[in-house]
Amino acid sequence: MKTIRDVARCAGVSPATVSRVLNDKGYVSEEKKKKIEKVITEMGFEPNQVARGLAKKTSNTLALIVSDITNPFFPELAKGAEQVALSNGYTLMLGNTKGADNKPNDYTKILMNKYIDGIIIATHDIDSQLLKKYSNMPMAILEMENDVENACTIKVENVHGSVLATEHLISQGCKKIAHIYGPLYDQTSKERLQGYQKVISMHSDYEEVTIQSDFTIDGGINAVDQLLHKYPDIDGLFVGNDLMAVGVIKELNRLSIRVPDEIAVCGFDGIYLTRIVNPEITTIEQPIYKMGEIAAEKLIDRINNPHLNRECIVLDVKLRVRQSSKKSKQNTIF
Amino acid sequence: MKTIRDVARCAGVSPATVSRVLNDKGYVSEEKKKKIEKVITEMGFEPNQVARGLAKKTSNTLALIVSDITNPFFPELAKGAEQVALSNGYTLMLGNTKGADNKPNDYTKILMNKYIDGIIIATHDIDSQLLKKYSNMPMAILEMENDVENACTIKVENVHGSVLATEHLISQGCKKIAHIYGPLYDQTSKERLQGYQKVISMHSDYEEVTIQSDFTIDGGINAVDQLLHKYPDIDGLFVGNDLMAVGVIKELNRLSIRVPDEIAVCGFDGIYLTRIVNPEITTIEQPIYKMGEIAAEKLIDRINNPHLNRECIVLDVKLRVRQSSKKSKQNTIF
Repeated sequence: MKTIRDVARCAGVSPATVSRVLNDKGYVSEEKKKKIEKVITEMGFEPNQVARGLAKKTSNTLALIVSDITNPFFPELAKGAEQVALSNGYTLMLGNTKGADNKPNDYTKILMNKYIDGIIIATHDIDSQLLKKYSNMPMAILEMENDVENACTIKVENVHGSVLATEHLISQGCKKIAHIYGPLYDQTSKERLQGYQKVISMHSDYEEVTIQSDFTIDGGINAVDQLLHKYPDIDGLFVGNDLMAVGVIKELNRLSIRVPDEIAVCGFDGIYLTRIVNPEITTIEQPIYKMGEIAAEKLIDRINNPHLNRECIVLDVKLRVRQSSKKSKQNTIF
Repeated sequence: MKTIRDVARCAGVSPATVSRVLNDKGYVSEEKKKKIEKVITEMGFEPNQVARGLAKKTSNTLALIVSDITNPFFPELAKGAEQVALSNGYTLMLGNTKGADNKPNDYTKILMNKYIDGIIIATHDIDSQLLKKYSNMPMAILEMENDVENACTIKVENVHGSVLATEHLISQGCKKIAHIYGPLYDQTSKERLQGYQKVISMHSDYEEVTIQSDFTIDGGINAVDQLLHKYPDIDGLFVGNDLMAVGVIKELNRLSIRVPDEIAVCGFDGIYLTRIVNPEITTIEQPIYKMGEIAAEKLIDRINNPHLNRECIVLDVKLRVRQSSKKSKQNTIF
């Protein structure tokens, strides 16, 4: 591999002069500059990124920490973030906080010993107090309450989305609507539960029926079993995320309970799995890929301008009606 | 942040001596060594990984290049590789060769300018000639013909798996079995097609019916439509990967063609999507997570022992029979 020394020798200058040209820092005469640039082109010299990183304290690397890359929400997010990273000259390092054994990996510690220019946090497995400790690191944080000074938070209209979902089930003629929510340390779970409660409390003829689960397919299966055992007359289910909704559909199919005629189902997220199960699942769609893009854009902004203020971006969601909630007219009228 | 100089000052030795202890290289008296280690512990000094990387030409970073992380095969592979990486003190950098616009990203070039200790290649979008150019970089390569000198190849028994799949469909009473295969620049597609052809050629009463597609859900949908248009009497489908099989099931459901009674379906890969569609899909199961683990293990072996010979590891596959291919006895006997 060619080094700065090789370039310097060939151009008849000192390595320090080559370095000044490469980093566009300090004075070098136009004549010398042209000569050095010519040698660089002729030799096919490419400056070593790590050495440059050490000098400039930068590595052109972003880290994306997700809770579990096997949840199909995250690969789409990762792809959006990666595209923006690449087109800005960065590469993306991936971390899962949920390891094989479900024991959280402490990625903050791992990353702080490397030169990472900035971090996108898309997991609730990192304590927000811990994040504050690293507030000199540029951050973009997804769906999480935090008071990290140097951070941009990106979230979606969770409460509004849940209101849309619950009102949609009411409009389809459901009389008893239950909600399966996720872990409450997760801000999204809390907000989605709030949206459901808000709508139910506004209708005196509706009763609040809720059960907690864990945002996984198996969690959805277990929750719907428990719900039906206690409330066999449920005819509408607003499920806190799409993965659990996939489990719910699977279990209702197994129990030969017709969806949507006997129970209408609505999820939340907009992952593509909602389109491959039968019936397809009505959901509240988030712009997942775009969230990844915005997170990377905002992070790179913060790397380039370290003194940007804290910022919070809230994105819109959409109700996407599919077969799982379209009750036939007969059911809704009588 | 504490530096080597701080440690040296406090221990009353030179920075070079501290460095020798940290890198376990060169002679340092036991007495000095103990003193330096004590100071390191007391100061909470953690050596800067990038600076160490520059000195040792290592960064403790592995790269995993996949074609498309939104294909559920890859997140599982990535998680296996990441767990092994972390437990050996490495972090994992992720790259997708298929960008948003399906234009391949040239990750080899991006990575060669960074200190990456080794690469796992799990994509066919990188030319094998290009890989040879980088043969001084330790590599683990999944499912790909290559003659990279420093590489370990990990693959599965594709031909054997396809033989199992095709024979299984015959055993279920299928009389006309078609095969949907993937792109032929992909070694796996070729081998799976070979396995199918091998079985069909051994049975004089069976006809070879094949169609090419692209390993995606939509590709499966389109392929089954074209097949049924030309061969309405097909009663068995061996689909070259599970993602296409998911599309096939979705389309057969839409056409109200009963699976498996009218058409039995078998996929290949063993991704979890095969268990969430209805009916669940019979598949040839690869040990995906384990492939990620082995790739990372073998790569780290090669980083530590640069003179290991080329190696090829072939893993077993299993036929996992589910509802999509279990024809009722009546069909198989009469």
